[in-house]
Amino acid sequence: MTERSCLSIILAAGEGTRMKSALPKVLHKVAGLPMLAHVTHAAQEAGAGDFAYVVGHGAETVTKAIAGFAQNAKTYVQTERLGTAHAVLAAREAIARGYDDLLVMFGDTPLIESGVLKAAREKLADGNAVVVVGFRTPNPAGYGRLIEKNGALVAIREDKECTEAERAINFCNGGLMAIAGKHALALLDKIDNKNAKGEFYLTDIVELANAAGLKVAATEASFESALGVNSRVELAEAEAIWQQRKRRAVMLSGVTLIDPTSVHFSADTEIGADTLVEPNVFFGPGVKIASNVTIHAFSHLEGATVASGSDVGPYARLRPGAELHEKAKVGNFVEIKKAVVETGAKVNHLTYIGDARIGEGANIGAGTITCNYDGFSKFVTNIGKGAFIGSNSSLVAPITIGDGAYVASGSVLTEDVEPDALAFGRARQKNLPGKGRELRERFSRAAKK
Amino acid sequence: MTERSCLSIILAAGEGTRMKSALPKVLHKVAGLPMLAHVTHAAQEAGAGDFAYVVGHGAETVTKAIAGFAQNAKTYVQTERLGTAHAVLAAREAIARGYDDLLVMFGDTPLIESGVLKAAREKLADGNAVVVVGFRTPNPAGYGRLIEKNGALVAIREDKECTEAERAINFCNGGLMAIAGKHALALLDKIDNKNAKGEFYLTDIVELANAAGLKVAATEASFESALGVNSRVELAEAEAIWQQRKRRAVMLSGVTLIDPTSVHFSADTEIGADTLVEPNVFFGPGVKIASNVTIHAFSHLEGATVASGSDVGPYARLRPGAELHEKAKVGNFVEIKKAVVETGAKVNHLTYIGDARIGEGANIGAGTITCNYDGFSKFVTNIGKGAFIGSNSSLVAPITIGDGAYVASGSVLTEDVEPDALAFGRARQKNLPGKGRELRERFSRAAKK
Amino acid sequence: MTERSCLSIILAAGEGTRMKSALPKVLHKVAGLPMLAHVTHAAQEAGAGDFAYVVGHGAETVTKAIAGFAQNAKTYVQTERLGTAHAVLAAREAIARGYDDLLVMFGDTPLIESGVLKAAREKLADGNAVVVVGFRTPNPAGYGRLIEKNGALVAIREDKECTEAERAINFCNGGLMAIAGKHALALLDKIDNKNAKGEFYLTDIVELANAAGLKVAATEASFESALGVNSRVELAEAEAIWQQRKRRAVMLSGVTLIDPTSVHFSADTEIGADTLVEPNVFFGPGVKIASNVTIHAFSHLEGATVASGSDVGPYARLRPGAELHEKAKVGNFVEIKKAVVETGAKVNHLTYIGDARIGEGANIGAGTITCNYDGFSKFVTNIGKGAFIGSNSSLVAPITIGDGAYVASGSVLTEDVEPDALAFGRARQKNLPGKGRELRERFSRAAKK
Repeated sequence: MTERSCLSIILAAGEGTRMKSALPKVLHKVAGLPMLAHVTHAAQEAGAGDFAYVVGHGAETVTKAIAGFAQNAKTYVQTERLGTAHAVLAAREAIARGYDDLLVMFGDTPLIESGVLKAAREKLADGNAVVVVGFRTPNPAGYGRLIEKNGALVAIREDKECTEAERAINFCNGGLMAIAGKHALALLDKIDNKNAKGEFYLTDIVELANAAGLKVAATEASFESALGVNSRVELAEAEAIWQQRKRRAVMLSGVTLIDPTSVHFSADTEIGADTLVEPNVFFGPGVKIASNVTIHAFSHLEGATVASGSDVGPYARLRPGAELHEKAKVGNFVEIKKAVVETGAKVNHLTYIGDARIGEGANIGAGTITCNYDGFSKFVTNIGKGAFIGSNSSLVAPITIGDGAYVASGSVLTEDVEPDALAFGRARQKNLPGKGRELRERFSRAAKK
Repeated sequence: MTERSCLSIILAAGEGTRMKSALPKVLHKVAGLPMLAHVTHAAQEAGAGDFAYVVGHGAETVTKAIAGFAQNAKTYVQTERLGTAHAVLAAREAIARGYDDLLVMFGDTPLIESGVLKAAREKLADGNAVVVVGFRTPNPAGYGRLIEKNGALVAIREDKECTEAERAINFCNGGLMAIAGKHALALLDKIDNKNAKGEFYLTDIVELANAAGLKVAATEASFESALGVNSRVELAEAEAIWQQRKRRAVMLSGVTLIDPTSVHFSADTEIGADTLVEPNVFFGPGVKIASNVTIHAFSHLEGATVASGSDVGPYARLRPGAELHEKAKVGNFVEIKKAVVETGAKVNHLTYIGDARIGEGANIGAGTITCNYDGFSKFVTNIGKGAFIGSNSSLVAPITIGDGAYVASGSVLTEDVEPDALAFGRARQKNLPGKGRELRERFSRAAKK
Repeated sequence: MTERSCLSIILAAGEGTRMKSALPKVLHKVAGLPMLAHVTHAAQEAGAGDFAYVVGHGAETVTKAIAGFAQNAKTYVQTERLGTAHAVLAAREAIARGYDDLLVMFGDTPLIESGVLKAAREKLADGNAVVVVGFRTPNPAGYGRLIEKNGALVAIREDKECTEAERAINFCNGGLMAIAGKHALALLDKIDNKNAKGEFYLTDIVELANAAGLKVAATEASFESALGVNSRVELAEAEAIWQQRKRRAVMLSGVTLIDPTSVHFSADTEIGADTLVEPNVFFGPGVKIASNVTIHAFSHLEGATVASGSDVGPYARLRPGAELHEKAKVGNFVEIKKAVVETGAKVNHLTYIGDARIGEGANIGAGTITCNYDGFSKFVTNIGKGAFIGSNSSLVAPITIGDGAYVASGSVLTEDVEPDALAFGRARQKNLPGKGRELRERFSRAAKK
């Protein structure tokens, strides 16, 4: 099949009014990726080399977003909404280039799987002119039925036009279609709008192809594959199904999820075997976790890499550019941004590390802050191998703390510290006997006034 | 209907022993509100102007709580528990005032919806003397059945007294009842206790009204509407149903909930369109979120208002009196209490802001603490427009930091800072070469002893 | 029954390849305890005094782990895997000691309940030689069926060998078995491997016992009780069922769980009545919570005890050795490790308390850090009754802050503070007029370069 050229035409013009959103529907996200990107990826995996996006509502925004996930893509603006066949023909120029296979897809079906598309393309390769993707459901009422005869698809019948016998059919139209490129334009141009709503329906292609003596077939997909998202309730349902699939795959690959339903993955999350994930963990985009890692509860990771043997959280926030080397330890209420925590280094409590390098085996005390921002620019903190940063210290960047240096607790440091040096930056303690009681009595009296 | 006067009689005397609680059952909360308040609100929405609460177990506590959510309310103590009709008659004085409509309700049915009550009242307006709320269930065994004839309700039959034919009826008694005020006392006084348990059953009113030649009808509610809570397991079930309803409504109004099941709302949570809520967010009472806000994972809000374009969390805790203006940013491990964060101001990391104002565009460095408490009183911190507070600073209130002032990292400030001034409050750094290694060796030897 | 001696033989030799783990399958955890420990505890509760573990894959690791939860235990290595009967006979030495009852159990069934085992043992006491534990399921296909006649068990029939009538039987083999000690070796030794796979099947014992004229019976368990875990998906399912059971039990005992599905318990969690647990709370091993406690959302507890009237979280992390006395308050972003927080003491915000005592009624300001670690050893901080620790202070241990002492905000303290004294350890504030603006302009220019 690989030698057959393939164009994916993705309809993405709908307004999606039920989303009640300023953002075009197809850009709403599932697993951190726009629905349109999910659809695109499935087509790419099924061998689509070129893409034609039919856009309309929010055309500019959608076109801009497409550049982020699709190559060999061109957008076509559908100015009037006159039906699905009309939408497909907005991409006439692309169709006319003469591909072997066309995949007509919908931008709001984020759960579509490449296997379905491959199966449809294989049926085109077998000589079918049109292949319709269908799904089975115990409750077919309301769906168009796929009417088959001797293994061929003869019609898609709207629910209300079904005979009693047809109404019992539970094989329904999923919308998605594969069309042989060489027949596509001729068939599409035959579709008319002589119907109640005056629209050009893509589904008419089935009877037209049959009438032209061409072979038409159906191929079965899961119910979910064809699931279109029209409201935020459906968006959440699609997200839930996506997460369930991912969690299952992750567990079967050897990862322990103590409470899978409480772990949120992104589309690109990678995670190694024998890693343990406690309940309530959020993986935003761009996270790579090695094997034998423990991610404790209430951790939030984005754009971070975590090497084997590391221990993260609870309540660890790893932001983009956080890079934990082997056996690193990042503990509770700790934020790491654009920083490397080298092998065996520990940042255990209530700490902010930004734009920094923490050398191998270094220990960062509780409450340490890298002061990396002056209100305008960010500066780097470089902490050497085996350094010890006392608790509640402030490291004003740019600053370098040498290997093996020791920083006293509560210090504010603005200058570099040589290797093996001891750095102080704190005032002497003074105790005033009896003065505490005095103060307390004064404050207490003031409070009573 | 609005011109008809209406009294809601709410039975709230039960002990609720299965709750195993020192708190009276009807005060246990759903969505942050006592069950009794939910029932009250539904009656208010259905037009009940006056309220009669029949209390018993924990009468004093319940009476006190009622004052918090009901007006025009009077409580009546039922000293003996002799059945539901007996309970209703505890409020004889209120009934005798002569209302058009009476609604007899139960304090432990927090999911009751006002629509059901309105429907029952409409049937009273249509000339019925009694209207019983029923629900349908595929498993009616154990419930009293509503026996209808020609659209009229002729009896409520206990499960064990049903004939074979009656047992197949799946329309069941939901408990709740509307009674025409003018017939109420006459009918209620006819109810006797000549039955196995020697109790006065309110359900007997149906046959008595029929016998008196009065019209009686049933009206259908959802199963949930009539759901009584008797244990904490059932309380959690009611909470789950309530949350599910709210999440769905919120999503349909244009809010994205990535993982709806992990977002907890309160009864009064308000949230605008195109706002995004990540997984694991807790909205306590009194929260108002505008549109186009992002609430990141693991955030906890109570009594807070958040204006459009703001960004909250992850791990942000907004406590009562937190007020974020447009495009404010409150980040991770940050607590805001009784404080205004003005337009575009940022409080991003590991910070406590209490009793404060953060001026427009100000930047609060990581680890900043407003020291607002002396052990007895709270004091205010006032930070000017465009001020920059260096990381790990302590601002000892009362204190004013002027517009455009700059506070050096690690400072402890006890005095006001003029606009545009630079404030320091930290010790000089001293580096002792080689002393870090020495210290390390000494500590290492000590640890080995 | 108690006078009957009982040996539990637990088969724990399987490799568990579908777990894809370096850790032997039976050591994977449910509710924080290895599956093998759950099985062991159920047997202990059912009166098993001695234990024979048949190990194989990862024998050494498993043997070591067993020492942690079982006494009177001996392990037997099954070097070849020749079937379940062969596995049981690996413990021949133990069986030969002559117990009244043998329980043959599986190390990967963590949901087994002691009631099932007791029921099986009672049937042995009633004169049965073999008792097989079965479960009922509406979908028995694939399971071995328990063929009963006149209340006796005559055979366990493999699915594919079932007659049409037998296939309709929904009483299935759960694997688990009780065997009368006096017949065990004779019966086990009769089992042969003359079957397709050439394995020695324990299930053959049923027909052999019948043939020998001995009484055989089945006893019914829940489906879950017999559920074997073979993949991490099944591990998560077992965990979910375990959690559901525990949550239900906890709620019925008088604890409010607002969102039960988001609360994670460990096997040994104890929690008192009228305690309220908000959503998203994680109880690791070793937690004891008294009654009338509130645990707010996003709290994480391990090895901690919390006395009545205390208030914990949100975002509180109580680590092993945290001990909260009555009415203590531990608030957000606070970590407590190996420390006592005495009656009424408060640690409310962004604080690390490790190796410490916080005296009765003391108040620990936001951002306080006990600096308990010098890179090698841990030291103790002792804070007296009624002491006030100002915000953002660093207490360098070992250190004692006397009763009623007052520590100024932002102090770094290295020396003891006498009772009622006031302690300072911070630099004086300096304000440089206009210098803030200058700095801002300089930084702004630098940023633009």
